[in-house]
Amino acid sequence: MARLDPFVARARNLVEPHLVPGAVVAVSGGADSLALAAVVAFFVRRRELEARAVVVDHGLQPGSAEVAARAVEQCAGLGLPASVRRVEVRDVGTGPEDAARAARYLALHDEAGNAPILLAHTLDDQAETVLLGLGRGSGPRAIQGMRAVNGHLRRPFLTLRRADTERICALHDLDWWDDPHNEDPAYRRVRVRCELLPLMEDVLGGGVAEALARTADLVRMDADAVDGLAIRAMPTSGGIEDLWTFADLDTPVRLRIWRRLAIDAGASPGELSHAHTLALDGLLQARGGTRIELPGHVTAVREGDRVRFEPQTRDV
Amino acid sequence: MARLDPFVARARNLVEPHLVPGAVVAVSGGADSLALAAVVAFFVRRRELEARAVVVDHGLQPGSAEVAARAVEQCAGLGLPASVRRVEVRDVGTGPEDAARAARYLALHDEAGNAPILLAHTLDDQAETVLLGLGRGSGPRAIQGMRAVNGHLRRPFLTLRRADTERICALHDLDWWDDPHNEDPAYRRVRVRCELLPLMEDVLGGGVAEALARTADLVRMDADAVDGLAIRAMPTSGGIEDLWTFADLDTPVRLRIWRRLAIDAGASPGELSHAHTLALDGLLQARGGTRIELPGHVTAVREGDRVRFEPQTRDV
Repeated sequence: MARLDPFVARARNLVEPHLVPGAVVAVSGGADSLALAAVVAFFVRRRELEARAVVVDHGLQPGSAEVAARAVEQCAGLGLPASVRRVEVRDVGTGPEDAARAARYLALHDEAGNAPILLAHTLDDQAETVLLGLGRGSGPRAIQGMRAVNGHLRRPFLTLRRADTERICALHDLDWWDDPHNEDPAYRRVRVRCELLPLMEDVLGGGVAEALARTADLVRMDADAVDGLAIRAMPTSGGIEDLWTFADLDTPVRLRIWRRLAIDAGASPGELSHAHTLALDGLLQARGGTRIELPGHVTAVREGDRVRFEPQTRDV
Repeated sequence: MARLDPFVARARNLVEPHLVPGAVVAVSGGADSLALAAVVAFFVRRRELEARAVVVDHGLQPGSAEVAARAVEQCAGLGLPASVRRVEVRDVGTGPEDAARAARYLALHDEAGNAPILLAHTLDDQAETVLLGLGRGSGPRAIQGMRAVNGHLRRPFLTLRRADTERICALHDLDWWDDPHNEDPAYRRVRVRCELLPLMEDVLGGGVAEALARTADLVRMDADAVDGLAIRAMPTSGGIEDLWTFADLDTPVRLRIWRRLAIDAGASPGELSHAHTLALDGLLQARGGTRIELPGHVTAVREGDRVRFEPQTRDV
């Protein structure tokens, strides 16, 4: 590379704030993670940093050991120490993707200790994650996507396109691996990538992946801010002591507090729906004595200007 | 109708809170608005309310006068007084859909005066609107969809499905009109309805329209709450007097304040991008003397712990 490519320069700028001694780069052998390895290796070669790559071999496909070994070799060629970590994937009923992800993150956390783990998720991954979220639920949290910084996890490439990482690999003469799973329509994420996003780009007139990623960031920021308001206004008594003061709070703050109070009282988080939370908020307009039954054998009761939660009296 | 259909009962519950004397129902002759007319007519027949329907004839299709006359006739048959309002649609470069909508809303506001205008948008319309928003921009406002109550406009059917309105029409022996434009793929909304939403339902596993509509409601509530925080924290000086106090605000509150200050100083709202707002927020980390140039010949300047906005000095 005679001259600094602008994409490489931008990638270096994105990675630099996340470089902490001992950082572990999660490498799969695909273009995204090899590009990240190449950028981190630049700083390692300049002795500005001690970092290494870990290639997780899930052992799910024939030849996975060779793919992992080839990735280690390429990292080493870049000057980034690398090793293979073999994991055993056990599907406990959540599907093969979730099981592989769980095993991978466990191994990466074990390797990294207290150091950050750098992940190569791109803007394209983020757009897919936002759409997949709509298949699982609704609301700001469903479409918030991935955070760039989440505990030890760092995702410096979240604003980079997948095509950019391939370009960075090509400029470094890296030979990335195309996972055949990335083309298999049995995976919902693959259909989102190969069918849904292209149709959205066509129908909505382009720029959809960027719009989804930016929307996720902005929606997440708003949701975090409203979460903060709810935490500060959270009652300590386990119920609402004065409904008139409580009614002054903004609706989304109240809805978060209702949900939290119900769960703290023993309601099942998985079964507690948005309709339940709205019903609880309806207690503001209800008469004294009104009861709302919640999943998990919990009842909310309005008594005068108060609402308290109690274990549900079951019909006999 | 010998026995009360549960869909009709639900529709009546949805409409009832919006019934104000003099209310105007906007009727196109399609299933959604005829169903709304049927539900409103129930209350009018019981003399609980004085309301009427207005059928806007855009004069854009051959036979539009007949469609409008037939809709008036059906409303009259229900006991709901109705009249045709003919409008002239002038496309000022925003496309035929926007031009028709603008002409229609203007006529409806003129007809209603200070009374509410009832619109028959359904959950399906809401889901389409949310997706169309992603084609125009990003962030919580892009995907917030339509409000159930917005000034004089009321949308009682936003939680009803389009199939429910057809059922309500059938139960009332109403003969609705299927606008051929609703099948014309030249319209982006039609492609969203006929191509994009069905693929999303297939890939994401169903329930997508409901998830989009509910997400829009929850995201809008959060955004409104954060808007409220920004309004309360808005500086009155036209700039930031103390960056350290300002830095304590949540990021989405700061970003809204930066945008508002820039626009108040003369920056062009249409050209002021999210990147500009982020650059302004970057002034918190900048040195004194740092300048950010904004579209509309406005410059933000950090001076010590203050930021002020000034007309841009243009290069000569």
